[in-house]
Amino acid sequence: MRVAVYPGSFDPITLGHLDIIQRGAHTFDKLIVAVATNEDKNPIFSVEERKEMISKVVGSIPNVEIDSFNGLTIDYVNSKGSNVILRGIRTVSDFEYEFQMALTNRTMAPDIETVFVMTSDKYSFLSSRLIKETVKLGGDVSPFVPPGIQQRLVQKLRK
Amino acid sequence: MRVAVYPGSFDPITLGHLDIIQRGAHTFDKLIVAVATNEDKNPIFSVEERKEMISKVVGSIPNVEIDSFNGLTIDYVNSKGSNVILRGIRTVSDFEYEFQMALTNRTMAPDIETVFVMTSDKYSFLSSRLIKETVKLGGDVSPFVPPGIQQRLVQKLRK
Amino acid sequence: MRVAVYPGSFDPITLGHLDIIQRGAHTFDKLIVAVATNEDKNPIFSVEERKEMISKVVGSIPNVEIDSFNGLTIDYVNSKGSNVILRGIRTVSDFEYEFQMALTNRTMAPDIETVFVMTSDKYSFLSSRLIKETVKLGGDVSPFVPPGIQQRLVQKLRK
Amino acid sequence: MRVAVYPGSFDPITLGHLDIIQRGAHTFDKLIVAVATNEDKNPIFSVEERKEMISKVVGSIPNVEIDSFNGLTIDYVNSKGSNVILRGIRTVSDFEYEFQMALTNRTMAPDIETVFVMTSDKYSFLSSRLIKETVKLGGDVSPFVPPGIQQRLVQKLRK
Amino acid sequence: MRVAVYPGSFDPITLGHLDIIQRGAHTFDKLIVAVATNEDKNPIFSVEERKEMISKVVGSIPNVEIDSFNGLTIDYVNSKGSNVILRGIRTVSDFEYEFQMALTNRTMAPDIETVFVMTSDKYSFLSSRLIKETVKLGGDVSPFVPPGIQQRLVQKLRK
Amino acid sequence: MRVAVYPGSFDPITLGHLDIIQRGAHTFDKLIVAVATNEDKNPIFSVEERKEMISKVVGSIPNVEIDSFNGLTIDYVNSKGSNVILRGIRTVSDFEYEFQMALTNRTMAPDIETVFVMTSDKYSFLSSRLIKETVKLGGDVSPFVPPGIQQRLVQKLRK
Repeated sequence: MRVAVYPGSFDPITLGHLDIIQRGAHTFDKLIVAVATNEDKNPIFSVEERKEMISKVVGSIPNVEIDSFNGLTIDYVNSKGSNVILRGIRTVSDFEYEFQMALTNRTMAPDIETVFVMTSDKYSFLSSRLIKETVKLGGDVSPFVPPGIQQRLVQKLRK
Repeated sequence: MRVAVYPGSFDPITLGHLDIIQRGAHTFDKLIVAVATNEDKNPIFSVEERKEMISKVVGSIPNVEIDSFNGLTIDYVNSKGSNVILRGIRTVSDFEYEFQMALTNRTMAPDIETVFVMTSDKYSFLSSRLIKETVKLGGDVSPFVPPGIQQRLVQKLRK
Repeated sequence: MRVAVYPGSFDPITLGHLDIIQRGAHTFDKLIVAVATNEDKNPIFSVEERKEMISKVVGSIPNVEIDSFNGLTIDYVNSKGSNVILRGIRTVSDFEYEFQMALTNRTMAPDIETVFVMTSDKYSFLSSRLIKETVKLGGDVSPFVPPGIQQRLVQKLRK
Repeated sequence: MRVAVYPGSFDPITLGHLDIIQRGAHTFDKLIVAVATNEDKNPIFSVEERKEMISKVVGSIPNVEIDSFNGLTIDYVNSKGSNVILRGIRTVSDFEYEFQMALTNRTMAPDIETVFVMTSDKYSFLSSRLIKETVKLGGDVSPFVPPGIQQRLVQKLRK
Repeated sequence: MRVAVYPGSFDPITLGHLDIIQRGAHTFDKLIVAVATNEDKNPIFSVEERKEMISKVVGSIPNVEIDSFNGLTIDYVNSKGSNVILRGIRTVSDFEYEFQMALTNRTMAPDIETVFVMTSDKYSFLSSRLIKETVKLGGDVSPFVPPGIQQRLVQKLRK
Repeated sequence: MRVAVYPGSFDPITLGHLDIIQRGAHTFDKLIVAVATNEDKNPIFSVEERKEMISKVVGSIPNVEIDSFNGLTIDYVNSKGSNVILRGIRTVSDFEYEFQMALTNRTMAPDIETVFVMTSDKYSFLSSRLIKETVKLGGDVSPFVPPGIQQRLVQKLRK
């Protein structure tokens, strides 16, 4: 069975993430969406909130599992019996950062392969940072996030 | 009448900004230079100071107006009866960030178009961040900013 | 009156070109779509055929004019009393080529400004070359070109 | 069973291609290396020669199959019961071209996913064109191609 | 005598830096590795620690000198009787940042030239930031740094 | 003595090339400008014409020598007792092509280093191809080439 892990901060899940999850679930036998617990990034949602939001959105896809992890991605991937990291790419800037990450991981864990799929052109310009800035400035981001997420962003970011 | 809005933080105005303002004033009937009030960015000059510096530099161009705004750029552009956002681009990194911003704005306000002009090659390498770092380290940035700005940067950044 | 010129080879017009034409017609008072007569490029359609196809597609937009020209773009733009060249950009590679062209034009004709708008994300990946290759290999390109163009491409490219 | 297709011209196979084949064979249950018969590209080796060279190099990998095809890649992938196209990427230029191709294919065949893996950093700079130019100029390309290929390139390109 | 200065924060020295130092020492008569004292960057090692680590690693190369400096790089380069700044580049993002820096320096000090060499492909993906993040998450970075540095990173970053 | 070789086709020499030659002559003890005899590229000027034009333009720089060569650049560099190839870079596209070339050369001749300097921002957009196209279309390229070259281009390209 081909198991892939899709790691990320998902703070919160966007339509771009959802698009990658659907493509990953279609391409591999099982896809684990893994929320990275990285305290340095000052997430606006807790790990539990992020998992719950992902769960509501992708709950109906049978071969998708939702989890969270501490520490190195490669250690987590190994622990789940997987050898594939799935990542989406949209832009040249993404590309360079993702490649640094993937080649660093490859040196440390040569048996794990990072595979990339393209985000749908409809979501190619989505950026979590821009979404959060837009919410703070009073904008409506419902075209960019799954149902229900806009309201939760407003609760967190507009006070 | 074709009115374009050139939004930015202008903290402070550089010769690169001035170049774009001149090109915009030449291309459209009226150009509004609009200082964005974004508290997250920790500007070194107040909105009033930034407007005053722009005013001294571009005061003699008849079809340029100077203003400031809160909130979303697209809401401000609509409120001024304009449907054009003007932006300068210099580099590939600019390009990707500007495109994310422009496509996000287009989804929220399909009637507003973002148009790009190229900064003069003489200023294509100017970066506000590098200018501020250079001032802090004791360098002379007068080749990069309009007359009078270098002195005000020194007052703010060297203590 | 603000007149912009959108030069290109349009061999043939694609949905990406159409998108830029609509944006240009919305942003300027008049838009001239100008077919460049460049014999070096070995076009598959004649200048007359290209003008006729553009005409069928954009005939209903009142402020769009269709023309063709020989020689330098800047000379043509001057001859039409315009000072704006309109170009679409989609990718980083586009960006670099367009910038070389625009800065070369600016040196020769400082009064003419090249302004860029972004192609819709739906068409951001369209490439005339890929469209032609796809037709040659037997593929259906109707999602990429205006109605009627697919059939004309088949007539020219599959024998 | 997860079957991926790795299409290319392989004119001739390089160590970069071999690297991608090994990664693909490790990531999917079966990998079909498919030589594209594209007469426009003026290959230096015939399809049969290219298949034979690939076969000598990857013959010992049990889940790799070698084939060739005419027409559209997506039609070939469908005909083999696969829904995955595998491609290697090395550079930003690659990235943009590959994305245009992959998004064009996605529009025509939404069920087929293109997945990308990174070429090993050791081969990230390899270019078929540079290899051929080097051979023509009398250089030794054995560090860049599998054993036996250098000699065949010399036979074809130096006369 | 051709003297080049290789400025940087070296916090800490990596195998990528070492590679550039060796290339610089081979290309110029003397190479000064100059640790920039930039308090804004919150380095994890003191200037003295950074110089000592560099010294242990490159001590055996006869034409390499180790130093530190305050203020503008161009002032330091002038003070050492050099007119060459050496920098390594690996990626497109590097390229754009380095060019902004180099062109800013060129405007202020036209007599000083910035020359670039490529990092070895083996180290082209190394990023100080990724190395530090990996150490914090418990990873082993000894493939990326000279002997002894991994242990010192662990002491600083894992508590 | 530090000898660098600046190889190229120089068909014909532009102000961008001249800029790099001046920088190279300032950075190294001796600079050899070496015209590559590459028949594949269909140059418009003969090797002798190209050398003569370079000679007229840079004849007054004492430490510059003009030469031509067949075969691999690295073999020529070795034959001149040099270990430095000098190249100018302007854009991201340049960067990627130059890096492929430089890393290919490094694998074949590890002792030779390719060093890059930036073209002046004034000439950063110059492209030989655009210059030739402009001449063919009747344009004046004298802002882009040294004195005398415009006239020779006209003789070759307009008939």
